[in-house]
Amino acid sequence: MTSSLFETKDYPIFFEDLGFRALDESIRNSGYSGIFVLVDEHTFENCWPILHQRLSVVEGAHIIQTPSGEENKNLSSCETIWRQLLYLGADRKALLINLGGGVITDMGGFAAATFKRGIDFIHIPTTLLAQVDASVGSKLGIDFEGGKNQIGLFEHPRAVLICSDFLKTQSKRPFLSGFAEVVKHGLIAKTDLWQKCQSISFNDPKELSALIYESIEIKNDFVERDPRDKGARHALNFGHTIGHALESHFLTDSDELPLLHGEAVAAGMIMESYLSYRKAGLTHEELDSITHYLFSLFGGVSLSESDFSDLLDWMRSDKKNAVGEIRFCLLPKIGSNKVGISVSDELITSAMEYYIARSTMELKEAH
Amino acid sequence: MTSSLFETKDYPIFFEDLGFRALDESIRNSGYSGIFVLVDEHTFENCWPILHQRLSVVEGAHIIQTPSGEENKNLSSCETIWRQLLYLGADRKALLINLGGGVITDMGGFAAATFKRGIDFIHIPTTLLAQVDASVGSKLGIDFEGGKNQIGLFEHPRAVLICSDFLKTQSKRPFLSGFAEVVKHGLIAKTDLWQKCQSISFNDPKELSALIYESIEIKNDFVERDPRDKGARHALNFGHTIGHALESHFLTDSDELPLLHGEAVAAGMIMESYLSYRKAGLTHEELDSITHYLFSLFGGVSLSESDFSDLLDWMRSDKKNAVGEIRFCLLPKIGSNKVGISVSDELITSAMEYYIARSTMELKEAH
Repeated sequence: MTSSLFETKDYPIFFEDLGFRALDESIRNSGYSGIFVLVDEHTFENCWPILHQRLSVVEGAHIIQTPSGEENKNLSSCETIWRQLLYLGADRKALLINLGGGVITDMGGFAAATFKRGIDFIHIPTTLLAQVDASVGSKLGIDFEGGKNQIGLFEHPRAVLICSDFLKTQSKRPFLSGFAEVVKHGLIAKTDLWQKCQSISFNDPKELSALIYESIEIKNDFVERDPRDKGARHALNFGHTIGHALESHFLTDSDELPLLHGEAVAAGMIMESYLSYRKAGLTHEELDSITHYLFSLFGGVSLSESDFSDLLDWMRSDKKNAVGEIRFCLLPKIGSNKVGISVSDELITSAMEYYIARSTMELKEAH
Repeated sequence: MTSSLFETKDYPIFFEDLGFRALDESIRNSGYSGIFVLVDEHTFENCWPILHQRLSVVEGAHIIQTPSGEENKNLSSCETIWRQLLYLGADRKALLINLGGGVITDMGGFAAATFKRGIDFIHIPTTLLAQVDASVGSKLGIDFEGGKNQIGLFEHPRAVLICSDFLKTQSKRPFLSGFAEVVKHGLIAKTDLWQKCQSISFNDPKELSALIYESIEIKNDFVERDPRDKGARHALNFGHTIGHALESHFLTDSDELPLLHGEAVAAGMIMESYLSYRKAGLTHEELDSITHYLFSLFGGVSLSESDFSDLLDWMRSDKKNAVGEIRFCLLPKIGSNKVGISVSDELITSAMEYYIARSTMELKEAH
């Protein structure tokens, strides 16, 4: 059975039914002057009723609604949140509960952390991606001038609540996209989690809940070792160096369907596993099982040689890279990682060729 | 002689000539990817040449200019600063130097602390008020929807540099307004500083420099005992409960000349000294010497009975007060303080009457 509580160094993460009760009591005892709940149109419809039923302290809370979507994670939405907090009478002892995906937790956290020099906030992530990624790590922010999270800061939430019931409101594709981060946590840090990922039954909420718990434990461990993202935490970037390049490339290429974050990261993990095999000690058998599993779960990204040079350009402009170099977190073996490995353009090209070749093979197999 | 360095718990404050040299070396050794200097039109003209001459590391720095004045301490100016940082290529290892008064240090600090989740910033305050008040204490922020500092946060600068040469660029009235905070620091914490204030020759830069140093020491001591402004730091509010009400009242009353912050605080300190005499143990002799000194240095605010009820309303709406109560920091004697003392409307009215009566007397004496 999964525990109902995980204590990070700075705040508690509550889980499931017992977590609701503990959070309810904790909020009640904190003497807040007012409670405000940030939602978007989807979480207002699908998640707010669940929260309202199970967290008695939100009875009478003020709802603040902001439009969903990454394109609304901006200063203008943030201003509206600040203005509503003011007009609804929020003072320094107010609490903001962020009920939604990563956009809501990132932006709501930023709005709270800067309102009257900082009020308390609690994250209740309602997507799998936000549960295992955005809500742990205390990175807050908004997009600005076309760049992601250009304005933001680091600040701890007062608490996080994770409940798998919220995930029932998610459709399959975004749910799976979030699962890519769980797989990543297994690959970089815990063989046992990687194995569980391969055999999970998504229809069993308890099994899923246990994997989310383990995944959060791992992410939090990296965050606590490197709160300001200057070293150890770069391990969380596995699959993301190429993954981010794929996201940017296919976003600007209007012929292609938009790629979800986790789908891009899954493809990135296949290619970076290839790099791990060539440069870091990953065995061919491990590479093979990772490749096969990720193709079977996420399908393939339709990549061709004509995309290579643009993808390399995107990798070079990644804000985590020093000028001219492309650095990776790679896997010496499944369940461990090594950060800051510089890889040549030639080898990255080989990784992309490997991806295309395997893609053809895997897709044939699937038919 | 004043020391060239004061070490707070979290950052160094450099002073005068030797301070410039130490700061120069410190910045040079920090490996910043770029240096950006925030100025307004006045500090660009009057202070930037001084900085440029004495801090060799700013050679080739990028200048970012923002319009002066409290009315420009807003989100729109902040956006312009962020945008310029982006377009000038500032990355996570950039440094922002805030060269100006409280508007520049508060807003520049906020912009830096939220740019790419926080870049380093250094305050070089160029007004007496900013040197002894805004630049120490790590409060950053901008005004929003008509309220002061509604959006902001607490974050330490990397360093502060204090140089009395910048004060030569200030005209007499705003300079004196800043001096009210020095007097306040003496009254709430150090009899010796209060005595020096009474005998200072403003034309002697060394004497002034020594008083600024002592004043910063006191302010920093309160800040370190209560970084998030929840208790001990309220002592810094002496003179400000009534002072802020006067500022707000005379700002909305268009018949009156605008009151500078320090002038309002000086009048507030006279009335709150009266409250201290009635409620906290200040002797009549002490009250008398404070009243006489402050009237002689700052002149009087033209107050009449018809202002009383509006002033009481402003005090009640002060964000530091719990609903319905008006609380003060008062002086049991000169050089000590007691926070959180609740005072009745009747007694506050008596204090305002005392101010008017003494005002008439002091002005007669002056003629």
